[in-house]
Amino acid sequence: MSKTLRTKVSRVFLSMLENCSNLLIILAIFDISMEISEDMVIYKNRKEKSPKISVTRRLEEGANESKLDIFVHTGSHVDAPYHVLENGKKIDEMPLDRFMGKAIVIDFTKVKESITKKDLINSSIKIQKYDIVLLKTKNQLEKDFDFNFVYLEKTGAEYLVSKKIKAVGIDSLGIERNQPNHITHNILAENSIPIFEGLDLSKVKQGKYFFHGLPLKIMNGDASPVRAVLVSHR
Amino acid sequence: MSKTLRTKVSRVFLSMLENCSNLLIILAIFDISMEISEDMVIYKNRKEKSPKISVTRRLEEGANESKLDIFVHTGSHVDAPYHVLENGKKIDEMPLDRFMGKAIVIDFTKVKESITKKDLINSSIKIQKYDIVLLKTKNQLEKDFDFNFVYLEKTGAEYLVSKKIKAVGIDSLGIERNQPNHITHNILAENSIPIFEGLDLSKVKQGKYFFHGLPLKIMNGDASPVRAVLVSHR
Repeated sequence: MSKTLRTKVSRVFLSMLENCSNLLIILAIFDISMEISEDMVIYKNRKEKSPKISVTRRLEEGANESKLDIFVHTGSHVDAPYHVLENGKKIDEMPLDRFMGKAIVIDFTKVKESITKKDLINSSIKIQKYDIVLLKTKNQLEKDFDFNFVYLEKTGAEYLVSKKIKAVGIDSLGIERNQPNHITHNILAENSIPIFEGLDLSKVKQGKYFFHGLPLKIMNGDASPVRAVLVSHR
Repeated sequence: MSKTLRTKVSRVFLSMLENCSNLLIILAIFDISMEISEDMVIYKNRKEKSPKISVTRRLEEGANESKLDIFVHTGSHVDAPYHVLENGKKIDEMPLDRFMGKAIVIDFTKVKESITKKDLINSSIKIQKYDIVLLKTKNQLEKDFDFNFVYLEKTGAEYLVSKKIKAVGIDSLGIERNQPNHITHNILAENSIPIFEGLDLSKVKQGKYFFHGLPLKIMNGDASPVRAVLVSHR
């Protein structure tokens, strides 16, 4: 093969490879959502905030129909900046690409208290710009609410902002435990970063995925319950 | 270039092309969801079924928080087979790939009454196995409920089943008007085909897309409100 031809062929190959690397083949869908039921785990065990599911019509009357009464911060859900900032974006005002895209699950199951900047820097999987970063911890969502859940500490939130991530998620019903002035929420909200809480990461491993967790389009909403999934691809 | 080399190169090219054709590059996200608000359009104008959005906490008390009370067949939503079949799958039992994947929007805006088998066969965009088929009609979702909305007629439902589609969607709050025994719903439900209703297709053109409309994981649910999007790709 002549040198000119070789250059030509390899240029075409390269451009095809570049295209392919931006593309996805779906191999599997992992459901990382909590089931919505009347006896699901509720933040700080406030049972008065449990969802209500009422059957409003039965098949013999025409069709099975029901109604869902739900606090928007229940189960797997996403917080909009307006949750903690009066002038923050509401859930129906957020650009949709914040809720879907390249994601990394980082294994912090050995962390006992909180995830700090140091933990994030030292993680074996590196955070890149526009990543949706999901923090897998020792938290468990099936059992009674754990008041000592592992949380994202202030310096961790600041570090994620500096990396220009799209969104963050965690496998507890809150992302900060009892830090003064919801500092983690505020740092993220001020940078328009949606916060996913109540994600069930127990069955997914550290790695790269494609994430989907679109909120309902609730007018003036401060949050929304979501069905969140991870799609593995190559 | 020798013949052997040419064959080799073209084989590699071909296999790369095959890979690419299964892949996606996201170009744009189209939101095809109705906004959830207390004064949104409700099926058959049954205002007692309007959603309620209650503010339960304000920022000065710690954070903006709210509650959503919603009939699950409100706005953009998806029906599970259990809606019309006692032994049909419930919304939390459906495989998730039914709610995401290759989709086609077919323009039926010239149809006056109902979409039949004949209309579907004659459409300029062809329906393929595993497609999510979205029916764009002259229905309008912003205005008062139109009791004479364009619907999917029995023979149309049967035809879609025969084509082995994944799911179907329409831009009215119902998919059948007043056919006896919910025949369209039944035909689709018996074949485990989810039915998306209340999709706002007014701003998307006929064509091929990638669709996402995952339901909330509501225990024993007969339906779920959804945030539905179309992603255009190449």
